[in-house]
Amino acid sequence: MEAYLDNSATTRCSESVRDIMLQVMMEDYGNPSSLHLMGKKAEDYIKEAREKIAKTLKVTEKEIVFTSGGTESNNLAIIGSAMANQRAGKHIITTAIEHASVAAVVGFLEEQGFEVTILPVDENGQISLEELEAAIREDTILVSMMQINNEMGAIEPIAEAGALIKKKNPNTLFHVDAIQSYGKLRIYPKKMSVDMLSVSGHKLHGPKGSGFLYIKDKTKVKPILFGGGQQKGMRSGTENVPAIAGLGVACEEIYRNYDANYAHLREVKEAFLKGIATIEGTHINGCVGEDSAPHIVSVSFEEIDKSEALLHALEDRGIYVSAGSACSSNKPAVSATLKAIGVPKAMLTATLRFSFSVHTTIEEVEYALDALRELLPFLRKYRSH
Amino acid sequence: MEAYLDNSATTRCSESVRDIMLQVMMEDYGNPSSLHLMGKKAEDYIKEAREKIAKTLKVTEKEIVFTSGGTESNNLAIIGSAMANQRAGKHIITTAIEHASVAAVVGFLEEQGFEVTILPVDENGQISLEELEAAIREDTILVSMMQINNEMGAIEPIAEAGALIKKKNPNTLFHVDAIQSYGKLRIYPKKMSVDMLSVSGHKLHGPKGSGFLYIKDKTKVKPILFGGGQQKGMRSGTENVPAIAGLGVACEEIYRNYDANYAHLREVKEAFLKGIATIEGTHINGCVGEDSAPHIVSVSFEEIDKSEALLHALEDRGIYVSAGSACSSNKPAVSATLKAIGVPKAMLTATLRFSFSVHTTIEEVEYALDALRELLPFLRKYRSH
Repeated sequence: MEAYLDNSATTRCSESVRDIMLQVMMEDYGNPSSLHLMGKKAEDYIKEAREKIAKTLKVTEKEIVFTSGGTESNNLAIIGSAMANQRAGKHIITTAIEHASVAAVVGFLEEQGFEVTILPVDENGQISLEELEAAIREDTILVSMMQINNEMGAIEPIAEAGALIKKKNPNTLFHVDAIQSYGKLRIYPKKMSVDMLSVSGHKLHGPKGSGFLYIKDKTKVKPILFGGGQQKGMRSGTENVPAIAGLGVACEEIYRNYDANYAHLREVKEAFLKGIATIEGTHINGCVGEDSAPHIVSVSFEEIDKSEALLHALEDRGIYVSAGSACSSNKPAVSATLKAIGVPKAMLTATLRFSFSVHTTIEEVEYALDALRELLPFLRKYRSH
Repeated sequence: MEAYLDNSATTRCSESVRDIMLQVMMEDYGNPSSLHLMGKKAEDYIKEAREKIAKTLKVTEKEIVFTSGGTESNNLAIIGSAMANQRAGKHIITTAIEHASVAAVVGFLEEQGFEVTILPVDENGQISLEELEAAIREDTILVSMMQINNEMGAIEPIAEAGALIKKKNPNTLFHVDAIQSYGKLRIYPKKMSVDMLSVSGHKLHGPKGSGFLYIKDKTKVKPILFGGGQQKGMRSGTENVPAIAGLGVACEEIYRNYDANYAHLREVKEAFLKGIATIEGTHINGCVGEDSAPHIVSVSFEEIDKSEALLHALEDRGIYVSAGSACSSNKPAVSATLKAIGVPKAMLTATLRFSFSVHTTIEEVEYALDALRELLPFLRKYRSH
């Protein structure tokens, strides 16, 4: 038996995504900038994907910019809006538990002379709205915040934060990294006062190398890649039509079955949590109820030196999980997120992330739990010191 | 019958590219940053692609950085090297016939305070080495030049230019946009004194959304996308493993059969040129022999107002060609390249590009020629004024 429980790192492509990609790669392979029929057909695939995606967010098609993935979406949102609005101010607010593709970008802007406020989070990984309010200044041009934390599944109060930001400073832009939340929660940027929203395709059974950035109409954002002026100049480069078409299908698919998908993920997570509770010396990081992501569980293990030993022991049984967030190639360093939520030092490197998809079964979860029950006593007995 | 003669805009994916992409999308879909077996497998695909590509250029694997395509490769090379080397100088040299993904980037840097020299070209689209030499100064940090022009197939004297640059100023970096030449010519960056070389996958039967930048070891280049630190920090973001694997296969494939491919393209081009010569009022732009690209022909038509009319008439017969370069979404504006080589004003908008691939047949070319023979007198008779 195998259990791929690393779906927050990446997911398997869905069959319908594969099918449309094949069609575009092999038959309708034109360049959307070509004036002839082959170009027109390619353009139609993009238009259709845009429509499908816009519908899931209740936004307009022209507000969707396709990118090469979540990292580019976050870079475009943050660098692009900072460059376009720096005359209004150079103050940016973010949180202590952002993904590297936000944290590193904000760090880059700090080097360029921007001032950055980093909001702390509580033991559940959530920011305080009071602290957010206090941090917003007249020269605050941007707040960038994730919706679901990739390492432990905390859900940030996006709608409340959005309302607060716009109330305190209507000129402050609000960027939401929805890479772990899109497809898992219902997201309506207009209702939540969100100006920019980043999504990645490969987290939701779509193609790797695909993603989009929602940019609210009339929001000032400068491009970060220059060239042929595709996508109204916001993202130059021949559009990756197969991936865009695949992304459109993946987005439509995940929201078409939203209620059933959500219920299934919750059921799987409940089963996992119930099982973990029976295993001694385990600690769940953050919330576990409806106030947490339906697909992510972070578990710290007592009396385990390094989670990698456990990770590889699980791997030997065909169970795949993450040590860190697996979105960083800087292999397991100490997680800033786990530190920020106050995980005790001894367990900072003894934490695993289990993440589920709509294809994860209860049987797979039970299989993983049984493996943990067997492996933990063994690893604890033979720990290195 | 159909004749897709727009292969410089984009190409059909090859079957072997499709096969490996399918395998990675549906079976070996792990995130290369994951520590487990699925991650390791994904990493192996990247490693293999890197090896295949490095071999075609006779460079080392660590000198290959994967990108989302040609535009990103050009942006990374030019912005990244300018940012990393601006203390040594802020002078950049390029040519009058670069693709927008170079020209627009250089324009962006000019706005940021860099000084730019744009070399003119002769009627064959080629720069003068004397003018290049004269332009290189002590504060010249970068020369960016394409190897094959995308609109009319001129080949620039890259090896000579490289030697000259390094002789005049060893600190000047040499970037070559090889997006139209890789796979069509044999390219050895080390021999040609090239420090950075841009390649796009979808021009050579590889995946859209794939490309790479060769960066010579120890060349100072800063990343332009920030995040998880993938690819040694040079290009953050989860690697697009299916596309990278596909790109590796496409690159290997095109050079494995290099001699036969090259001979075939020449034969097709010869047949086309021979045919065009028999059609009245047609002019070939630039060189046509071994000193020109094997796969591109630019033809200007007398007594035709706008090439689009001809393009659409050809389209009606299943013949697909380009008006401009089709790499720009700013649909047919007047081409800077055609202007730069001195195409008469009346024919600037009456020019079509025919571009071939290894799959183009002589029959397709004859079919296109027959169509031109029939359509031209008709369009000329009913031209608008």
